[in-house]
Amino acid sequence: MKVLSVVGSSNSGKTELITKVVPLLMKKGLKVLVVKHARFFEMDREGKDSWKIFRCGVDVVVSSKDKTAYISRIRDDLEIICDLFGRNYDLIITEGFNRACKDRIVLLKDPDELDRFKCGKILAIVSDFEIKGYRCFKRDDYDGIVRVILEWYHKR
Amino acid sequence: MKVLSVVGSSNSGKTELITKVVPLLMKKGLKVLVVKHARFFEMDREGKDSWKIFRCGVDVVVSSKDKTAYISRIRDDLEIICDLFGRNYDLIITEGFNRACKDRIVLLKDPDELDRFKCGKILAIVSDFEIKGYRCFKRDDYDGIVRVILEWYHKR
Repeated sequence: MKVLSVVGSSNSGKTELITKVVPLLMKKGLKVLVVKHARFFEMDREGKDSWKIFRCGVDVVVSSKDKTAYISRIRDDLEIICDLFGRNYDLIITEGFNRACKDRIVLLKDPDELDRFKCGKILAIVSDFEIKGYRCFKRDDYDGIVRVILEWYHKR
Repeated sequence: MKVLSVVGSSNSGKTELITKVVPLLMKKGLKVLVVKHARFFEMDREGKDSWKIFRCGVDVVVSSKDKTAYISRIRDDLEIICDLFGRNYDLIITEGFNRACKDRIVLLKDPDELDRFKCGKILAIVSDFEIKGYRCFKRDDYDGIVRVILEWYHKR
């Protein structure tokens, strides 16, 4: 199981990139899990039963015919998350988790932002401009980005 | 790890009972997980990033400082759910999952409903009436219900 991060400042297009690239990776046969960092999120909608149950202090699993959600008091520690949930997947793609210093794809709105994301190996930069010394891709070059990820994935 | 079901027809008060009884069980030192069956639920809100990512076909973990949710394509199979998520808990309380035939507490709105829920051991009936041959509790007798659960839990 390998871990790759997609990092960039807010509104740099991380979610958009992930929703376009991940289906292509899955078509190649990879079992992928996306781990997203969020400042805040809500389980289900306020007032719904699963929300009430979680609020009473207990961890919850909600399960229906097509999906199952497990909501726990585990905090945003990437190592723990990968260990708990990553076992049945080939590739974990994180959205955010810059400080975990995993190998990464960096989305830039401005060249000055790069310094914040220098940590771990930078496979590619996705932006509207080029930066010397890096493989650079346009935002919609999904095939190119997938190729870089697969090269990295298959490297020992 | 033991599994107890809270069953009853819709609007019989299952969620209400669980949100009142579970905190009392946790105060007794039990690590509890609630597994709720739902005909339908939504992860986060439509249009939010985590929702978009799940919709693109991939399983997702969303993680913040205080909680983590894992949403997968696992279906509503109680054995699989207990196996995957139950390991770190002492007691799993299911809301629904009548047909899994686990030991149970049955909430009744009408005595005629009982037949539907006869399967597994009935620890108690919670209702506004008494039914011969069963330990019966009023809806708000949380201490009594907790006592029955603890007796059952500690029995080998």
